[in-house]
Amino acid sequence: MKMTTVAEVEKLVLSQLRDFGTQLLPFEQALGYALAEDLKADRDLPPFNRVTMDGIALKYSAIKKGLNTFRITATQAAGDGPVEVEQDDECIEIMTGAVLPASADTVVRYEDVKIEKGQATLLLAEIKQGQNLHLQGADKKQGDVVARAGVVVSPAIISLAASIGKSHLLVKKVPRVMIISSGDELVDVNEIPSPYQIRKSNSYTVRAVLKKHNIDADILHIPDDPAITKEKIQHCLKNYDVLLLSGGISMGKFDFIPQALEDSCVEKLFHKVAQRPGKPFWFGRHGDDGALVFAFPGNPVATFMCLHRYFLTWLNAILGLPPKKVTYAALGRDFTFKPELQYYLQVTLQSNEQAQLIAMPVEGNGSGDFANLAVTEAFLELPMERSEFKKGEVFVLWDFTD
Amino acid sequence: MKMTTVAEVEKLVLSQLRDFGTQLLPFEQALGYALAEDLKADRDLPPFNRVTMDGIALKYSAIKKGLNTFRITATQAAGDGPVEVEQDDECIEIMTGAVLPASADTVVRYEDVKIEKGQATLLLAEIKQGQNLHLQGADKKQGDVVARAGVVVSPAIISLAASIGKSHLLVKKVPRVMIISSGDELVDVNEIPSPYQIRKSNSYTVRAVLKKHNIDADILHIPDDPAITKEKIQHCLKNYDVLLLSGGISMGKFDFIPQALEDSCVEKLFHKVAQRPGKPFWFGRHGDDGALVFAFPGNPVATFMCLHRYFLTWLNAILGLPPKKVTYAALGRDFTFKPELQYYLQVTLQSNEQAQLIAMPVEGNGSGDFANLAVTEAFLELPMERSEFKKGEVFVLWDFTD
Repeated sequence: MKMTTVAEVEKLVLSQLRDFGTQLLPFEQALGYALAEDLKADRDLPPFNRVTMDGIALKYSAIKKGLNTFRITATQAAGDGPVEVEQDDECIEIMTGAVLPASADTVVRYEDVKIEKGQATLLLAEIKQGQNLHLQGADKKQGDVVARAGVVVSPAIISLAASIGKSHLLVKKVPRVMIISSGDELVDVNEIPSPYQIRKSNSYTVRAVLKKHNIDADILHIPDDPAITKEKIQHCLKNYDVLLLSGGISMGKFDFIPQALEDSCVEKLFHKVAQRPGKPFWFGRHGDDGALVFAFPGNPVATFMCLHRYFLTWLNAILGLPPKKVTYAALGRDFTFKPELQYYLQVTLQSNEQAQLIAMPVEGNGSGDFANLAVTEAFLELPMERSEFKKGEVFVLWDFTD
Repeated sequence: MKMTTVAEVEKLVLSQLRDFGTQLLPFEQALGYALAEDLKADRDLPPFNRVTMDGIALKYSAIKKGLNTFRITATQAAGDGPVEVEQDDECIEIMTGAVLPASADTVVRYEDVKIEKGQATLLLAEIKQGQNLHLQGADKKQGDVVARAGVVVSPAIISLAASIGKSHLLVKKVPRVMIISSGDELVDVNEIPSPYQIRKSNSYTVRAVLKKHNIDADILHIPDDPAITKEKIQHCLKNYDVLLLSGGISMGKFDFIPQALEDSCVEKLFHKVAQRPGKPFWFGRHGDDGALVFAFPGNPVATFMCLHRYFLTWLNAILGLPPKKVTYAALGRDFTFKPELQYYLQVTLQSNEQAQLIAMPVEGNGSGDFANLAVTEAFLELPMERSEFKKGEVFVLWDFTD
């Protein structure tokens, strides 16, 4: 039987899009969510001809006429209404952030004038008309879109929201996710494992990755019991949008999850992918548009890779975000991988002085070795068709430190 | 007066290191903090010879003797104690994650055997001794350091912590930060500004950036009043480790903050940096080892740049993290910048098929134009000594999307 390829799997996963709706959040809480509305300038940006230096405001035409000394008639702070400059030989002191009065058109900063006895004398020969001003509407006009729906709310967008008075932002809701582990060999972090048990760790890794994407996932452990497994799976299918399993889908005698999924009308969309790690990845859906089941292999590196390669790609799509930009990296040394599988090689990254990104293989001990993940930064995607990869060749990179 | 250079400023800022101590956090909450202890394996990793495929366990020597069919004497699940294989012609069924019994040394997966009437017959000619096993201690030995102090707690480290039973992690405390804005021209997000006012936005941007670094900063707005300014500044110096100001340090008549800082024994370490944006950046300290004052210029792009370029560099250092790796990018088109200042050019990024990172200038309308920050990804650091920069030349990059 020919295994499904990575490209086919990605297409299948992306065929299962869902829309979980939107929600209105206080704007600061929206950080990291996908924006679901266009943000429009409520006023011109800047909203008025804004002074950008502390100094004096005057009429440029007066300088042109040869005037060099100006009587100071008033001082205008930022936030004050404009104070007009009535005569050619007059000026006002004016502060950064203030509105330029309509009767003036040029600002000379304090550093470039001498102020004495209520008069300001220019110290510079060259003054440009309109200098030290940020003109009304120079950045955006009222009604202009300042940020489009379909981007992640960044600190810069928080800033834009604040400046246009959007105290709440409409963002895409994230799916409700249940992370499921199974098997009597697993104990919790606080427990002492028997010599033949290990502690659960995958669920926490997955939850940590999802937390970075504003998903607050729940965690469930299912013991090796067919009745309990079925009951728990059915509960999850009803109450969550996505079930992320690590382990439990295999040919093992005590893997009751495949049966529970089948009994609960979860349709298998594929099982097994021509990749390493993560070959036994299983994917299914509950009804036509019900919960999705991403059943990752139990090995920590496999779960981690599949989570980044497939689940986050899917998440990005359902949130209406553009596909992640492709990043390339050059292999830092020769590498051989013989099996006819697409290989996800763990690498560290270094930017060289030609601005080229170099990926150095750090192999560890296979997909069970999660200690290796802590010292690497990305997976380099090595094509299935080949087995010899040369230093300097360029491949697609999946950075997992973002 | 010669202005302080960017390199000098970085050195001065990094001369003001502080240690805010450590705290113990429940391990999942430690995500993103700086680890302050070495993590050691409490057992070998894996803790036993671990089966990596569902199948049968047998003695390799029996295969060598020519045996091909084995009587199944028992089934051993993951988590069970080992069930020994007594005779050459016997095997046990064994599950992924189970401990290999001492009497067996090889696992053949279900796909490669035929099971009938309680007997398993090998379907493969070639079986390797020790196959489908992840041997005890292959990744780490008991007592080995699995993660060192001085790294950011990543999802992979959460996984390691869980697997070695560290339910709490010792991490570096982050500084207590107060973000201060000032000036009567600023109103809050919910307020309607007069025609000559604008809404506060810098404080929220700064808070959003700090939130990504696990700093939960407070925000304060100080009106244009000398007595209130002094009282507020003194309160902040006493109760916070860092004051981050945007605006308020200039030659303006209504900038009462410089006087309040001087009256409160805050020593100026520098003012004005040979850079754009952010030339009027002011930095000081309260007493020898008291609060630090980062007074950024009020323009949003300047505040944003200084925050990333200087504050986060300082934060990284005080948390005991290694200096951020230098990233280089190649300029995507010719660019001219004449003033004798180090220029921080806003750019978008693209990885090309030579794995080279290309930075394309997106200039916007100067340091007041924060709408431009929402569509760019990084600052490219163009050296002060030059004014003509050619397409393809490589410079240091400061990514602000991390």
